[in-house]
Amino acid sequence: MAKELKDLTKRSENYSQWYNDLVVKADLAEQSAVRGCMVIKPYGYAIWEKMQQQLDRMFKETGHVNAYFPLLIPKSFLSREADHVEGFAKECAVVTHYRLKNDPEGKGVVVDPAARLEEELIIRPTSETIIWNTYKNWIHSYRDLPILCNQWANVMRWEMRTRMFLRTAEFLWQEGHTAHATQEEALAEATKMLNVYADFAENYMAVPVIKGVKSANERFAGAIDTYTIEAMMQDGKALQSGTSHFLGQNFAKAFDVKFINNENQLEYVWATSWGVSTRLMGALIMTHSDDNGLVLPPHLAPIQVVIVPIYKNDEQAAEINRVVEPILSELKSMGISVKYDNADNKRPGFKFAEYELKGVPVRLAIGARDIENGTVEVMRRDTLEKSVAQLDGIANYVKELLEEIQGNIYQKALKHRESMTRTVETYEEFKVEIEKGGFILAHWDGTPETEEKIKEETKATIRCIPFDGDKTPGVCMVTGKPSTQRVLFARSY
Amino acid sequence: MAKELKDLTKRSENYSQWYNDLVVKADLAEQSAVRGCMVIKPYGYAIWEKMQQQLDRMFKETGHVNAYFPLLIPKSFLSREADHVEGFAKECAVVTHYRLKNDPEGKGVVVDPAARLEEELIIRPTSETIIWNTYKNWIHSYRDLPILCNQWANVMRWEMRTRMFLRTAEFLWQEGHTAHATQEEALAEATKMLNVYADFAENYMAVPVIKGVKSANERFAGAIDTYTIEAMMQDGKALQSGTSHFLGQNFAKAFDVKFINNENQLEYVWATSWGVSTRLMGALIMTHSDDNGLVLPPHLAPIQVVIVPIYKNDEQAAEINRVVEPILSELKSMGISVKYDNADNKRPGFKFAEYELKGVPVRLAIGARDIENGTVEVMRRDTLEKSVAQLDGIANYVKELLEEIQGNIYQKALKHRESMTRTVETYEEFKVEIEKGGFILAHWDGTPETEEKIKEETKATIRCIPFDGDKTPGVCMVTGKPSTQRVLFARSY
Repeated sequence: MAKELKDLTKRSENYSQWYNDLVVKADLAEQSAVRGCMVIKPYGYAIWEKMQQQLDRMFKETGHVNAYFPLLIPKSFLSREADHVEGFAKECAVVTHYRLKNDPEGKGVVVDPAARLEEELIIRPTSETIIWNTYKNWIHSYRDLPILCNQWANVMRWEMRTRMFLRTAEFLWQEGHTAHATQEEALAEATKMLNVYADFAENYMAVPVIKGVKSANERFAGAIDTYTIEAMMQDGKALQSGTSHFLGQNFAKAFDVKFINNENQLEYVWATSWGVSTRLMGALIMTHSDDNGLVLPPHLAPIQVVIVPIYKNDEQAAEINRVVEPILSELKSMGISVKYDNADNKRPGFKFAEYELKGVPVRLAIGARDIENGTVEVMRRDTLEKSVAQLDGIANYVKELLEEIQGNIYQKALKHRESMTRTVETYEEFKVEIEKGGFILAHWDGTPETEEKIKEETKATIRCIPFDGDKTPGVCMVTGKPSTQRVLFARSY
Repeated sequence: MAKELKDLTKRSENYSQWYNDLVVKADLAEQSAVRGCMVIKPYGYAIWEKMQQQLDRMFKETGHVNAYFPLLIPKSFLSREADHVEGFAKECAVVTHYRLKNDPEGKGVVVDPAARLEEELIIRPTSETIIWNTYKNWIHSYRDLPILCNQWANVMRWEMRTRMFLRTAEFLWQEGHTAHATQEEALAEATKMLNVYADFAENYMAVPVIKGVKSANERFAGAIDTYTIEAMMQDGKALQSGTSHFLGQNFAKAFDVKFINNENQLEYVWATSWGVSTRLMGALIMTHSDDNGLVLPPHLAPIQVVIVPIYKNDEQAAEINRVVEPILSELKSMGISVKYDNADNKRPGFKFAEYELKGVPVRLAIGARDIENGTVEVMRRDTLEKSVAQLDGIANYVKELLEEIQGNIYQKALKHRESMTRTVETYEEFKVEIEKGGFILAHWDGTPETEEKIKEETKATIRCIPFDGDKTPGVCMVTGKPSTQRVLFARSY
């Protein structure tokens, strides 16, 4: 482990390599034999499971139910909505056959040409089409609305350049698909779910986010409007962390989904969709971690506290076990996830390095001397500070410390974002500032052409038109035309 | 709803149609636009979620962790294990391309011939191959063992004849894949997980099962031995409900996974795999339900109790609401899932029929007269019996009733199975008895040839060689050759 830690690239040397190293060395994920697809290892999956559980709870509290729709989508469905097909056709994995057979030349198996599908099927890149084709049968009257479904699923987008968690060909996500009787209700739903995502990002992931609406260029393929939460990574790049789409009547029209409204008129149904994915794992890792490894927010850490005994002989070990036992019970009864690592085939220093690498928020170390003194050594992962605490009342101390760490890493990320967010007036100034990374608030004339020009010349995109903050109008930094408010620019993942 | 209920085919008329009707009418699932793939609707998915939660808990209690492996598997991986490819090649969905493009003739999108994969990928029918290819990197020494991973995933087997939940092209399941240093340990794991499945089937699904080992003909493709739990449906057919495989060193050899054992020698790793799927939903439905609809075991019912108010005016409605409020709180505090259906756009009779169809275990109906008398009408779904209970202490009464129902439907299923299980001595007798359905215990000479002959002549297969029960040797009913014990025959799903 000492060796592995030494191998972890420093952020200042190569941020990108640091990320890749960390994902592998902290046992979160690894590349698989299939191009662009990763294996999510047990420790990484345990974090994802905690995210899922909390999000699922929040979805249910807001009235949603889970369902499951097919993995495969008839190719023709994709063409029904013009923007949608434009957005996804180029990255679809296509199933063309349904059988293999023995190679006549004796080399393993080959695709059986006789088992060709009449219509090719694509692996879902997202499920609007298959779901709206299904909703057609579920919706007849306003009494059938709203429909508030979510699905936890795998999806596939054949990306050319992939990075673990951030951009993989296959990824895990949830996709909410709702159907409403009015535009107003659908808009309210899209906003509600964006707020759920922001709440989750800030209060569980400890990742501050900026809420806003995407420009037309960055909108989901098929949406009228895409709302987004944007987070800033330690290298100053933006990471789109969750999106919620107001789809208008686009998919209802594409799949002919009408309902009798309460005035007895036939009308197309209004829709939203919203999703977050295993990409959140990337945001979590890149927001908080350091050159020693992962830093996990206590609210999502699979192990919140680890206790390591330090002893010289069996007698001391037995004595420490005896003292630790009631502490374990008390922590567990408080709902705190604790691991007692008294394995005797690894030295304490090795264990310390391992739990640091894995981002366990609090480490307690107890030796014979501590027991004599009624104390315990406490190390908090966020600051790496060690202190000595009283054994008496340690469970409550740890509980409070976990909350303090949760708050501290959020504040640290927020300060970092604030220090890396600037307002600029001129395009010249913008070009200089964007090279330094971070978020830039600037005026834009609202046209796709200007946005495209800025992207080509600076690699920066409009991350969102923020909902909150300064709404003062001005003039576009590029064209001098009127601007209704400053928008958020950054280079992004 | 009344109309829908009337449309539910009776079991005695057409059991198979009854099942299909019920799946659709109880809102469990429906066919999708993709051949052989179903949509699992919210109510069906809610039951599956309860199954998942309980199974996941049991897997974790027995030391397992979750992980996630890729959906797509390189075609060549399948060929590495001879039996495995033989078993699965004929039902594989094959991905051959990774891009669509606009049809040059302007008709939607077509597969882009330039985006052909060098090696085709198959959608996992099961994940032994991709997982053992991954384990190769995880396992070097006996200190890396055991590995106890499970994954919750979708898989695809291109079945020609499909039935919702029982046999679908895509289905949801969990697959455990474990790696061990010794044969003994792998055998113990395979047995342990079969017992977990049996425990789940009997104590949560209320489905009695017979545990045993499969004959060679019925073994998982690539296994040394397949253990199974077999349940009997109401029509007397068997349903294989879960399997656990001892894989020996087959996959370790196919993917060259060796480890240094504690005697410093290089050895192939020992393996198991085990899985249950959404097929369990089929078992659940077919074991307990009746001509009025679903009957759900309380331990897996998404709604355990429904309360329906019966009132003639707003004043009565308000009074009932007032009385019901504390009952709801008390039931919820006991961990009981309760729904208060005071929607005023449906009549009580309509609601009664709906909750009967959906299998809610206990229904309470409260009217103004009840409140005067301090009583409530209780209907239990398993027997459809109505009784009057005291409002005072109703929560405890309901809690006990739920346990009674759970026990009762298990006993009912067990009695049914016992009444439909017979012992026969001669093949003539066997041929007569098998036509009546049910399980038949008979002697068999242990050869695949005899098993095949019986299957061809009677459509019955050996469901398992039971672990428990009569172990007296005898002679094969077909060939007269020696038999070590009776085996379990049935026609099956």
